Amino acid sequence: MPTAFERRTRDAQAALSDGDADVLVCFPSRNLFYLSGFAEDPGERHLLFFLPAEGDPTFLVPELYGKQVRAESWVEDVRTWADDDDPRAAVESVVSDLDLPPAPRVLVDDTMWARFTHDLRAVLPEATFGLASDVLSDLRVRKDEAELDALRRAAAAADEAMASVREMGSDAVGLTESELAREIERLLAEAGGEGVSFETIVGSGPNGAMPHHAHGDREIRAGDPVVLDFGTRVGEYPSDQTRTVVFDGDPSETFAEVHAVVEEALAAGIEAVEPGVAAESVDRAAREVIEAAGYGDRFVHRTGHGVGLDVHEEPYIVEGNGRELEPGMVFSVEPGVYLPEEFGVRIEELVVVTEEGCERLNRTDRGWEC
Amino acid sequence: MPTAFERRTRDAQAALSDGDADVLVCFPSRNLFYLSGFAEDPGERHLLFFLPAEGDPTFLVPELYGKQVRAESWVEDVRTWADDDDPRAAVESVVSDLDLPPAPRVLVDDTMWARFTHDLRAVLPEATFGLASDVLSDLRVRKDEAELDALRRAAAAADEAMASVREMGSDAVGLTESELAREIERLLAEAGGEGVSFETIVGSGPNGAMPHHAHGDREIRAGDPVVLDFGTRVGEYPSDQTRTVVFDGDPSETFAEVHAVVEEALAAGIEAVEPGVAAESVDRAAREVIEAAGYGDRFVHRTGHGVGLDVHEEPYIVEGNGRELEPGMVFSVEPGVYLPEEFGVRIEELVVVTEEGCERLNRTDRGWEC
Repeated sequence: MPTAFERRTRDAQAALSDGDADVLVCFPSRNLFYLSGFAEDPGERHLLFFLPAEGDPTFLVPELYGKQVRAESWVEDVRTWADDDDPRAAVESVVSDLDLPPAPRVLVDDTMWARFTHDLRAVLPEATFGLASDVLSDLRVRKDEAELDALRRAAAAADEAMASVREMGSDAVGLTESELAREIERLLAEAGGEGVSFETIVGSGPNGAMPHHAHGDREIRAGDPVVLDFGTRVGEYPSDQTRTVVFDGDPSETFAEVHAVVEEALAAGIEAVEPGVAAESVDRAAREVIEAAGYGDRFVHRTGHGVGLDVHEEPYIVEGNGRELEPGMVFSVEPGVYLPEEFGVRIEELVVVTEEGCERLNRTDRGWEC
Repeated sequence: MPTAFERRTRDAQAALSDGDADVLVCFPSRNLFYLSGFAEDPGERHLLFFLPAEGDPTFLVPELYGKQVRAESWVEDVRTWADDDDPRAAVESVVSDLDLPPAPRVLVDDTMWARFTHDLRAVLPEATFGLASDVLSDLRVRKDEAELDALRRAAAAADEAMASVREMGSDAVGLTESELAREIERLLAEAGGEGVSFETIVGSGPNGAMPHHAHGDREIRAGDPVVLDFGTRVGEYPSDQTRTVVFDGDPSETFAEVHAVVEEALAAGIEAVEPGVAAESVDRAAREVIEAAGYGDRFVHRTGHGVGLDVHEEPYIVEGNGRELEPGMVFSVEPGVYLPEEFGVRIEELVVVTEEGCERLNRTDRGWEC
């Protein structure tokens, strides 16, 4: 019986044929894990996976990865090159065995480094190039039960950590953002998570107004709103959720008002999720609440993004995305309001589209009080 | 007075002119930090830095990064695009303002994602493309005093963690590799490190024979050789060193013999480092020791790699690299011997080339006994 990885590879080949593409080339990426079962971070050595539209895939890997790739992947044709070989010659040899048409259509990983695409272009000067997402997005966007199971477990681990952070209450006052980030990462591991799925965000006071501030030396004070946005992985799949809390003391009235608006926007966004509606309508539902409250120009990002092997993937929940939601899609709903120099508020949860509406993956208290 | 970042940018422009390139385009990468002072991980949104051979650089960033980029970078021309804009149109507008020749030579970050190079190629159909390393490698390969200071501090933090791990002795027996990896990461943070600079490697027993095995569920037993290879960052600069230890009990005689060979190879490699010698001669010096002991075919990787903002960068210490060593270069010397199904031994240290020879950045005990 084929593994899930092999089944996905055969589906990808069918999609390549349908899309008139001749070969898909992956390097260490989420696509590579999705198809081959081999997970690795990108590196400067040529580690490539060639999937022709017909026939079997070929791995070309540095010699020191050979054993590991053979152990972790179902793929049988694993070729290696040594550190004193010329990797471009190795690529040339694999490509020549693929028996491609004279001007092939080649799809490469969306995240493939220019270092490697330049070599592919040199070896295949007559080829036209496209992106792997052209064929893989549609496969990856609907999660199967094994994927949903991993996503649920990752969300549960993060929820457990978030509940523990909230319980810190006044103990968190006086910690720097970076110290609290380290404590969060410890709690994620304790809850069964593997590492972090993105850089932990602890945005206290005015730092919370910069949506992508990670964490720094600022000490958390009583009365500070603190944006907490962090994630971990379970079985390669990530979590991603946000709460904005006040560990101790009283925040400003403006903060309490803004927080209530964002909570309402989150609820409206989630309420809008059901099969058949456009992704952008979830954005609109959340944004209308914030606009009606007069903070429309302070909600400076899209309402959400798909979550799967990549923390950011299709479907993007943004104006202009008319794509219809389908059962099995997983994405974030994360409205935010940012008042420069003052504070930020973001509340984020993951949902799975179901036949009837949606399933929420995050279940912790949404309020700001600890 | 210009900042170090601005000085490097002007040097890069001189190198662009010398190399007949018209513009350098970076995305979130180490090159981008090196030139602009803005550090960020790659993401799916267009965040690009355009450096023409003459004139001032331009940042094109997602709206939610605008404030942060203006705060962290010296660059004055920071343009933003919103989530409901078309980023390719924004790229087109910046490129048109650059006033490039009809068929410009464009260098892109070596790690730039295909997603972004495809857009640049669409906007600049007549351009020829090369890699940023063509001009930046030569600048980045010689570290200035500020860079060396950060590298020394990162190495000291990692050495402190390594010494603490060694002190665990028999307490480490019974831990899984992943549990020990988490403890190592805690010790790195305690020693002042920021996160990890690569995935922590704890390769116990036969797992140590797979050079890039990270860590897993295997429990560490008495008598097991354990490869410990981990790193952290201080001031954006990484550490990287390896020890192979036995926490408790007696390893095989073969192991003790192999460990002594690898120790000798490390010493021979470091002894070979001085200005003017070829990078490959350091590889040869280490490899000859291992070959003479009869393990030449078990040393399956190069002897080392440069370390700077990237954990792997020039100069690569590998046969075929005739590049002469120069003062200010920093690289690893890391011979290893891997006996499949049995164990692996790798010992690694970082060195800085000096006028007279080299300075060792790692100073902990090289032996296997805890």
